[in-house]
Amino acid sequence: MTDTQNDGLLIVGEDLCEKLVGRADAFEAVEAVFAAMAKGDAYNFPVIREAIGYADALYGFKSGFDRAGKNLGVKSGGFWPGNMAKGLTNHQSTVFLFDPDTGKLSALVGGNYLTAVRTAASSSVSIQHLARKDAKVLGMVGAGHQSHFQMRAAAEQRDFEKVVAWNPHPDMLPKLGETAKELGLEFEAVTPEQLGAQADVIITITSAFEPLLMKDWIKPGTHIACMGTDTKGKMEVDPALVAAATVFTDEIAQSISIGEAQHAIASGALKEDQITPIGKVINGDHPGRTSEAEITLFDGTGVGLQDLAVASVAARLAAESGEAIRVKL
Amino acid sequence: MTDTQNDGLLIVGEDLCEKLVGRADAFEAVEAVFAAMAKGDAYNFPVIREAIGYADALYGFKSGFDRAGKNLGVKSGGFWPGNMAKGLTNHQSTVFLFDPDTGKLSALVGGNYLTAVRTAASSSVSIQHLARKDAKVLGMVGAGHQSHFQMRAAAEQRDFEKVVAWNPHPDMLPKLGETAKELGLEFEAVTPEQLGAQADVIITITSAFEPLLMKDWIKPGTHIACMGTDTKGKMEVDPALVAAATVFTDEIAQSISIGEAQHAIASGALKEDQITPIGKVINGDHPGRTSEAEITLFDGTGVGLQDLAVASVAARLAAESGEAIRVKL
Repeated sequence: MTDTQNDGLLIVGEDLCEKLVGRADAFEAVEAVFAAMAKGDAYNFPVIREAIGYADALYGFKSGFDRAGKNLGVKSGGFWPGNMAKGLTNHQSTVFLFDPDTGKLSALVGGNYLTAVRTAASSSVSIQHLARKDAKVLGMVGAGHQSHFQMRAAAEQRDFEKVVAWNPHPDMLPKLGETAKELGLEFEAVTPEQLGAQADVIITITSAFEPLLMKDWIKPGTHIACMGTDTKGKMEVDPALVAAATVFTDEIAQSISIGEAQHAIASGALKEDQITPIGKVINGDHPGRTSEAEITLFDGTGVGLQDLAVASVAARLAAESGEAIRVKL
Repeated sequence: MTDTQNDGLLIVGEDLCEKLVGRADAFEAVEAVFAAMAKGDAYNFPVIREAIGYADALYGFKSGFDRAGKNLGVKSGGFWPGNMAKGLTNHQSTVFLFDPDTGKLSALVGGNYLTAVRTAASSSVSIQHLARKDAKVLGMVGAGHQSHFQMRAAAEQRDFEKVVAWNPHPDMLPKLGETAKELGLEFEAVTPEQLGAQADVIITITSAFEPLLMKDWIKPGTHIACMGTDTKGKMEVDPALVAAATVFTDEIAQSISIGEAQHAIASGALKEDQITPIGKVINGDHPGRTSEAEITLFDGTGVGLQDLAVASVAARLAAESGEAIRVKL
């Protein structure tokens, strides 16, 4: 970050983030920060999340400090359900980075695009480190905005041949099919049961509050990345499936409280010490998948440090490109 | 805030804040938000405060939402003790304001000067509403950077004739004397005991962890604004003085946990329901001072909503002046 702090506050807008930060950059940044978290070099601060009682909005902050990457900051923003009708994104995010040596604000980075790529990077890091090498069929549960980012990032991790997909609203599936086609992948809209029977890797990316995939539908050897559950009460897959799988996560504290593992933990079917931070696998301190038949499950809850990591890349690339705005505060 | 949101993000630097936001503006904004808090129209979110284990820094966020004033946002920053040696302020703050209707970032406002004026406005609101009308002598305990702001704001609330002052480091007192002289006030450096015997209004603004003023030193009818205690363990005055006084505060939750009242509350000498939010006095729902002999004490803990209130004024004035920078995010 040093070269972004020499000359005032760096401002990196959404357009510049989209132009400069690619999937490989996001993958590398997210993988590195997961590794730092598992080593104790980086930690997330408590999350603030408030229903503000106005405009039905949820607003809050995710923040943290990565001593290894020298990233200190906060992602601020929230969910404004009425935005779509005004031609705006419902999710609104901005990342603020601070110089850890002085506390001065060093960069302001648009967070909407980066949130999508860092979330996609998270599941793709899990696929890279946990899925079977011979995985051929990718199952997509969910077909919203974020699902396209997920599919593009996942497609780079294995030699997939086909995508099978299901969504609560089937009318959104053809658009996901177009993205699959762009990637040169066969595409089939299927039932959740058929999806489980075919897929070697599954990504769930929905806002569900009930299980969309049952344990008995899943093949041995499958890797599942549950990316949608980030709130108490949400649920994407059968808690019995979570309990039967080898569970990995970005952050255990979030996994057991607001992540996909919350339900299996609450019922006692899964114990906290059975969940492994994916950073341990990245660092070589945990073997990850230990057999071809094992079902691995990544509980991707989304942590502030991921946002800081990709925003820091955006700030660095923007500073190097000379295209960012600089402002004296 | 509407006229600041029309055309991208508004950036208001420290210099512009100093130029545009006067004491009267800060007084009005802080008084209004204390009133809104007491009516339930505004609330502070949980405070994040982290010792990050790097550069001895304390870093965090104060945030909230004022539905009445349409102010939503966060003050971010902290305390970097090594900054002074680098020619920077140890306290570093920036305020981020968001449009409550869409969640979009609307303004970024330098927070160093504003933190000083909003803190001074807080004690001066308490003096305006709680001190005896005939107060003539102002007592200052503390002579650091912030004490000058405190004295200037206090001097506008009553017809003071004299300032008596004490500071743990006496060498800082002459500078405070110069500020008193500028204001046309007599100035005397005294012992804490002499200070209590002379002062009609006392402001404490230190980082003390032990009582600097004892109960028996204080005259009947005195108003005391304790402005320094904002952390567990800090203490500026005798807990017996707090218990004997009629206690007011900006926010009860902070007063009893990290404010000056924490010690009297912990010992049981003061009960939570004996503390009154100053907003109730402003709103006319509490009489405030009820006799000339009563000792009133304001526990000014410092809340995020104060920061948002003055930052919002800065953003509005900057937008009106045409001097702020606007950036498309």
